[in-house]
Amino acid sequence: MTADLSPPRDDFPDIDAVVRELAAARHDWRSAHHRLNEPGPRELPSRERVAEIVEALRGVLYPMRLGPADLRQEHENRYVALTLDTALGVLLEQVRLELAWEARHIAAEGAEPLPRGAEAIVTDFANGLSDIRRLLDTDVLAAFNADPAARSVDEVLLCYPGIQALIHYRIAHRLHLLGVPLIARMVSELAHGATGIDIHPGATIGERFFIDHGTGIVIGATAIIGDRVQIYQAVTLGAKSFPTDAEGRAIKGAPRHPIVEDDVVIYSGATVLGRVTIGQGAILGGSVWVTEDVAPHTIVSQARMRSVGQAEERRTA
Amino acid sequence: MTADLSPPRDDFPDIDAVVRELAAARHDWRSAHHRLNEPGPRELPSRERVAEIVEALRGVLYPMRLGPADLRQEHENRYVALTLDTALGVLLEQVRLELAWEARHIAAEGAEPLPRGAEAIVTDFANGLSDIRRLLDTDVLAAFNADPAARSVDEVLLCYPGIQALIHYRIAHRLHLLGVPLIARMVSELAHGATGIDIHPGATIGERFFIDHGTGIVIGATAIIGDRVQIYQAVTLGAKSFPTDAEGRAIKGAPRHPIVEDDVVIYSGATVLGRVTIGQGAILGGSVWVTEDVAPHTIVSQARMRSVGQAEERRTA
Amino acid sequence: MTADLSPPRDDFPDIDAVVRELAAARHDWRSAHHRLNEPGPRELPSRERVAEIVEALRGVLYPMRLGPADLRQEHENRYVALTLDTALGVLLEQVRLELAWEARHIAAEGAEPLPRGAEAIVTDFANGLSDIRRLLDTDVLAAFNADPAARSVDEVLLCYPGIQALIHYRIAHRLHLLGVPLIARMVSELAHGATGIDIHPGATIGERFFIDHGTGIVIGATAIIGDRVQIYQAVTLGAKSFPTDAEGRAIKGAPRHPIVEDDVVIYSGATVLGRVTIGQGAILGGSVWVTEDVAPHTIVSQARMRSVGQAEERRTA
Amino acid sequence: MTADLSPPRDDFPDIDAVVRELAAARHDWRSAHHRLNEPGPRELPSRERVAEIVEALRGVLYPMRLGPADLRQEHENRYVALTLDTALGVLLEQVRLELAWEARHIAAEGAEPLPRGAEAIVTDFANGLSDIRRLLDTDVLAAFNADPAARSVDEVLLCYPGIQALIHYRIAHRLHLLGVPLIARMVSELAHGATGIDIHPGATIGERFFIDHGTGIVIGATAIIGDRVQIYQAVTLGAKSFPTDAEGRAIKGAPRHPIVEDDVVIYSGATVLGRVTIGQGAILGGSVWVTEDVAPHTIVSQARMRSVGQAEERRTA
Amino acid sequence: MTADLSPPRDDFPDIDAVVRELAAARHDWRSAHHRLNEPGPRELPSRERVAEIVEALRGVLYPMRLGPADLRQEHENRYVALTLDTALGVLLEQVRLELAWEARHIAAEGAEPLPRGAEAIVTDFANGLSDIRRLLDTDVLAAFNADPAARSVDEVLLCYPGIQALIHYRIAHRLHLLGVPLIARMVSELAHGATGIDIHPGATIGERFFIDHGTGIVIGATAIIGDRVQIYQAVTLGAKSFPTDAEGRAIKGAPRHPIVEDDVVIYSGATVLGRVTIGQGAILGGSVWVTEDVAPHTIVSQARMRSVGQAEERRTA
Amino acid sequence: MTADLSPPRDDFPDIDAVVRELAAARHDWRSAHHRLNEPGPRELPSRERVAEIVEALRGVLYPMRLGPADLRQEHENRYVALTLDTALGVLLEQVRLELAWEARHIAAEGAEPLPRGAEAIVTDFANGLSDIRRLLDTDVLAAFNADPAARSVDEVLLCYPGIQALIHYRIAHRLHLLGVPLIARMVSELAHGATGIDIHPGATIGERFFIDHGTGIVIGATAIIGDRVQIYQAVTLGAKSFPTDAEGRAIKGAPRHPIVEDDVVIYSGATVLGRVTIGQGAILGGSVWVTEDVAPHTIVSQARMRSVGQAEERRTA
Repeated sequence: MTADLSPPRDDFPDIDAVVRELAAARHDWRSAHHRLNEPGPRELPSRERVAEIVEALRGVLYPMRLGPADLRQEHENRYVALTLDTALGVLLEQVRLELAWEARHIAAEGAEPLPRGAEAIVTDFANGLSDIRRLLDTDVLAAFNADPAARSVDEVLLCYPGIQALIHYRIAHRLHLLGVPLIARMVSELAHGATGIDIHPGATIGERFFIDHGTGIVIGATAIIGDRVQIYQAVTLGAKSFPTDAEGRAIKGAPRHPIVEDDVVIYSGATVLGRVTIGQGAILGGSVWVTEDVAPHTIVSQARMRSVGQAEERRTA
Repeated sequence: MTADLSPPRDDFPDIDAVVRELAAARHDWRSAHHRLNEPGPRELPSRERVAEIVEALRGVLYPMRLGPADLRQEHENRYVALTLDTALGVLLEQVRLELAWEARHIAAEGAEPLPRGAEAIVTDFANGLSDIRRLLDTDVLAAFNADPAARSVDEVLLCYPGIQALIHYRIAHRLHLLGVPLIARMVSELAHGATGIDIHPGATIGERFFIDHGTGIVIGATAIIGDRVQIYQAVTLGAKSFPTDAEGRAIKGAPRHPIVEDDVVIYSGATVLGRVTIGQGAILGGSVWVTEDVAPHTIVSQARMRSVGQAEERRTA
Repeated sequence: MTADLSPPRDDFPDIDAVVRELAAARHDWRSAHHRLNEPGPRELPSRERVAEIVEALRGVLYPMRLGPADLRQEHENRYVALTLDTALGVLLEQVRLELAWEARHIAAEGAEPLPRGAEAIVTDFANGLSDIRRLLDTDVLAAFNADPAARSVDEVLLCYPGIQALIHYRIAHRLHLLGVPLIARMVSELAHGATGIDIHPGATIGERFFIDHGTGIVIGATAIIGDRVQIYQAVTLGAKSFPTDAEGRAIKGAPRHPIVEDDVVIYSGATVLGRVTIGQGAILGGSVWVTEDVAPHTIVSQARMRSVGQAEERRTA
Repeated sequence: MTADLSPPRDDFPDIDAVVRELAAARHDWRSAHHRLNEPGPRELPSRERVAEIVEALRGVLYPMRLGPADLRQEHENRYVALTLDTALGVLLEQVRLELAWEARHIAAEGAEPLPRGAEAIVTDFANGLSDIRRLLDTDVLAAFNADPAARSVDEVLLCYPGIQALIHYRIAHRLHLLGVPLIARMVSELAHGATGIDIHPGATIGERFFIDHGTGIVIGATAIIGDRVQIYQAVTLGAKSFPTDAEGRAIKGAPRHPIVEDDVVIYSGATVLGRVTIGQGAILGGSVWVTEDVAPHTIVSQARMRSVGQAEERRTA
Repeated sequence: MTADLSPPRDDFPDIDAVVRELAAARHDWRSAHHRLNEPGPRELPSRERVAEIVEALRGVLYPMRLGPADLRQEHENRYVALTLDTALGVLLEQVRLELAWEARHIAAEGAEPLPRGAEAIVTDFANGLSDIRRLLDTDVLAAFNADPAARSVDEVLLCYPGIQALIHYRIAHRLHLLGVPLIARMVSELAHGATGIDIHPGATIGERFFIDHGTGIVIGATAIIGDRVQIYQAVTLGAKSFPTDAEGRAIKGAPRHPIVEDDVVIYSGATVLGRVTIGQGAILGGSVWVTEDVAPHTIVSQARMRSVGQAEERRTA
Repeated sequence: MTADLSPPRDDFPDIDAVVRELAAARHDWRSAHHRLNEPGPRELPSRERVAEIVEALRGVLYPMRLGPADLRQEHENRYVALTLDTALGVLLEQVRLELAWEARHIAAEGAEPLPRGAEAIVTDFANGLSDIRRLLDTDVLAAFNADPAARSVDEVLLCYPGIQALIHYRIAHRLHLLGVPLIARMVSELAHGATGIDIHPGATIGERFFIDHGTGIVIGATAIIGDRVQIYQAVTLGAKSFPTDAEGRAIKGAPRHPIVEDDVVIYSGATVLGRVTIGQGAILGGSVWVTEDVAPHTIVSQARMRSVGQAEERRTA
């Protein structure tokens, strides 16, 4: 087989020296960020636990489609109750961690602390779940109606990354509103990683929202989107310039992303920047660049292509 | 450590009430979609099982590169036979589920049922595997030849997301043709999630296809792509407008995506929409927007940039 | 339940025939690529093992944020030492595999062999880890300062895909320089899959680099990026045409990607191609297409949109 | 079957030769046992699946003690219903396998086939579960009352191997009576492996049965044990001689193990063999050897020790 | 609690009815044992968590033999510190659960509550770990010296079930003394299940204790064993009769198991019952039955076998 | 080694102090046992890896009964070849570790080193596998014939702990003969833990060996057992006194366990000690104590019980 099995490692790194240098780097960072005095374990929400919560909630929202494959419809209420109870217990723990971390760090850095208790947040969240389900149902229907390739609502629910992103977004948005923006961000980043669709939990999105393909979509934190809107891949609803403070740091808060009214369609690669309003029923063509208001029912499209000669060269990235 | 351990949860959500509301939401959806009468377990193909099948087929196609790390070449035929047998067994089970679901739902919603049996589909699929392997070999070679950063065919096979997407696509396309479009879609969405490359299983793609970087590529269901085509990141081969029925639902079927002839190169961010033909050997420059036919050997490129002054502002999304 | 349990599979594929055809396909490929004579197991670095190494190094670099949730700060040096020792052991094994494969295949295909030993590579890599941490700290700070939605440095580190991509890139770049480009490529592709950000390990990137959203970013192998640069989603720093040899294969090596100087900002969707220089402090607007040098402090933006009438049609991809 | 010809590693076993010899050994065995003609997968109950069923039933019987640690009492009925539904589904599948195997093999070897259907067996089993729970409750109480070291009924349930063995036995016995002796045997052997207590599923045992320590206890297939019996470690309730047929094979069936009446106590190491009756209230001392009836309320004990001199030697096993 | 009404499967058990009957059985038990009023999750130490603690402590005690296989000796102190910290954290949590449960149930049932805090218990336990290691070292040495089949101390540590049982016992005994007898019992039952050796945590055992083979050994809660004692398989150090109270329940506490002085050897199958003293240096032969004191240096052996004729029958259990 | 100074938690153990004391205990042990100078990882065979090997060999020996549940008989040779190849690779690695450790430690402690190479050992082992299978087949048949409760050979193979123990023993014995006694011991201890049957790998056992129930059986290292022998639970074939050296350590080697000739039956609890011979066809009754030769065809049984009065007391262990 092989004649190897590790030879002696005389010429190997001095692990202690590497550890010391890494410790020095950590010390410098912590001095600069007021984190020197934090004995004990990390007390922050955990991405893994948040992922468990979302996975459980997917089953709670759609037990016979996204729950366990052997679940029988006769038992779905029981499954929903049990799974919800466990998921809310884990959520409560994570919410407590965020609120404590918030009190420790964010207040110290100038933001105001969040006044509500963890139990109240989790209770409100649970009470809003059936609204989330009903909203998502409108999204599934919108996709089925809008996409000629969709053969059934089941296919949409099981396969479409846009729906996966919206399940995460609608959960994350509710958590954001309830005062746990870090957990909310973790929820939305899980979808971002899986689908390439980046919807900030702070964005407001109406019913029957349709995302096609989705990769590369970015929807910023203060965007407001109406009902029956359709957005294709690589669309950006972003911010334009924003003021910075004396230290060159962005001043946080304040509306800076677009308002998209009902029934707007935005084709792939379009970019809309700043607090502009895209009027009801407008259509933005692919790859357009919009930094001003668009009147209702307007069609906006890009300058067309031009031919520049016969092919003879090749180029790559 | 911590003085906590959950305090009583008096102020906690009324789980029963939440469960009731979720049940009501499900009931409304099922009434609207003719799914009220479905006791027993979910009978639909499973994303997890489909993922297992694809993982096994990757090893079957490339045993010494994508199979188990300790497999010895002397035993690769045995590994291929065993793994194939298991994978086809699981596939047979999933195909049966899709055919039964198809008979139950799609027929009810107006599409015609699929006439072939599960065994015939799986048999045809298995018999086509060596063709899939030979096609993929041309893709690997195309990538190695086209990318100056590629140091060996092994690196291409192990690292390039374009190859991962093509393995999934070529499997999915075959399944799509054989009459199990839902399983096929699951196969392609697994690659979409992992690579950001969205190739609909219905698309037709010739040999020596090269995808570079890949993130954001969209290839629609009725696209037809010739041999030796190269496509870069964020290229869309999409549909233009299509008629809707009286209820505003897209009329399904009918060719609506581009035909891309042999030897075409399409650079990053280009968008081609509708049933247009990009003639043999044409080159579409980055970010161009094409909605009409392009003659063979034509180069199409975007209007150039313009400078608008000195930098002084900053903006972000 | 179900009356099934597999019926006999008379009409099933002839597994032996499929195995034979797959073996024939493999044989043809191996003949063409000089790989016929390779008995024994695959001797190539493994994506799974490389993923383990990177996961461990994330904890080594940021023990209290990306290490185990129950780690107490009092013990972080111990955790770092232990984890590092294990990770470097695995890395040593993978480096040996790559060097041996390199000697076998790449030399045979014309490239020069790598002269350094595995121990020396791993030692140098370990000694550079604290520099990587310090560079990453500047990236975290840059994101916190530049993004008005960022509420704390912890949120940036835990949630931002740009930071995840940079952890991978800075590790991969070091490995690339040390002579194990295949392992380096695996490290960067793991981030590409998870974030949609594709940074080639060969690229050179200065401190305080900020990636926002990130999906679709492509940075080529010979790109050089200065300090304090900001790049948004879907930006390409790619190559333009390059010469091919007599067999139509790209000639490898040679600078072919942009130089981006300090303090440049490149907005979403911009494409910069070829060995051009974007001068210090320049701003490239969203979706611009740049193939020539840009002078320092210049603002480059796209031609604006135009309105083409009232909305009445719909189109999709 | 296969043309597979792996070349041997130089200094290593000829794998093909070993495989051929093993195949020859299998062929000889199958010829001798009428199992040559069995294409397809093994169709026998699976130890792993049976273990899953028992694990689930433990939670169904004692949800707040042997179910999941985070189960809240408010939800125990839901947990019981869901878990039961899944476990019975798996049981149904295993029962079908045993019935089919029984029809194939046991009938052929002379035993009569079992006439009842799988659904009826599982239904009867489910309907008897609350009786099993009530019986087990009497066993827990008996242990608590009899053992001066037991501090609470919870400790008995969580820690005592005798209780673990009785949970398995009471389930296995019911399955044995219902006509699936192979599954029943798997259930009891799982407890035998874990506790060293070997109770044949065919044995009949009354309520308030107390097993102390338990290791080495053997209770044979036709033993009958009354109420309130106590048995200590290493007790055997076995069979004496039994007739063999012309081929020297044991003649199966027929009562051959002891009857132990109510209130009997049998101390450690006692051996009782054959169809004898230990009368009500009798006490069998440790290590006694009993092959005849014992009258009610008799005490039987061993001949006492004798001293044989001063210690000077040592011996070991 | 819930209005959930699952329709029965036709030929299947009425799950709801089974659930109701199981709930009734639980209700009866809880009424009888004062456990009706326990909403929320089970608050008892968990066998799984206790198993994790013991597994970690095995590595802490013998890092280079029972710790992770790739641990390098250079790092063993770090491994010990990290693993200990985590294990003590989990232990603290389990100790708190036991103390709370003790206060709730045992007090109610008449025993006195335990006055010490969880932190103090865990601290004392940790401080005693090196004593446990030193004691275990004497046990390993005793086995190596006493067993002619032992080829090295490493073999003893890695393979001998007696050592496994003693690691558990010495941990469990310390926990028992510190006031957490339920956790202690779980620790010892884990070894009982794995080795067939049942040592009650309450027993007192001196140094250089040697257990050979071990299966079936029982050592009772109040036994006291001196130094350099050797015990073979199936030895019982048990209790004789003890008084019961008016309800027939054993009166708990009070010494009732043997005292075994230094240098005693007890061969396989011997049974010693009651508060008798086996004097220093005595030897108890295999299978003897002892219920009275044995003077120091005495050899006790069983009455010898007798031949009863020619073999002609066969018997089995 | 490290300057690591974790501050103690207030009310908690001083982890550093505990670590120091544990290190001191290790140091003392290592000084006494010549193990101070062993940097690097543990280089000893691993119980986990050995368990994997045995699990694989079980499938190799009985593919359609102990292999994967979904294996189809058509593919069993392929499964056997692949599994064997992997298992032998792992075995080779473990054999190398044992040989190296042997050279380091055992030689130092006085035993002679083993001269054969790892490849030769593994090759011989593989070549003997079909003999092991044929021997095991005789054992299965013996159990089926001897046990009136056995309903089929499949039940014996799937459920009987005696068969499980013999699979391990026959593998372990072969490894012991080939010169890797530590790995062999690990194999047999895995069965000891699972079944309570302790057969030393050095023992010699003929064909058609039948073990019933099995718990507590001990068969010593130099025992020799003929063909068609039957042994019941709790039987000991052990050693009597043996000489010790000047330091009181057992002198190792030399025959010290019984010879049991063909066709002997030994009933439960019997103890046979020393190098005595139990002649062909003899029957040893339950619980007998034998330390002298027994002539062929003799029946040996215990003195019978006596009744000592009426029951009125209770006793427990």
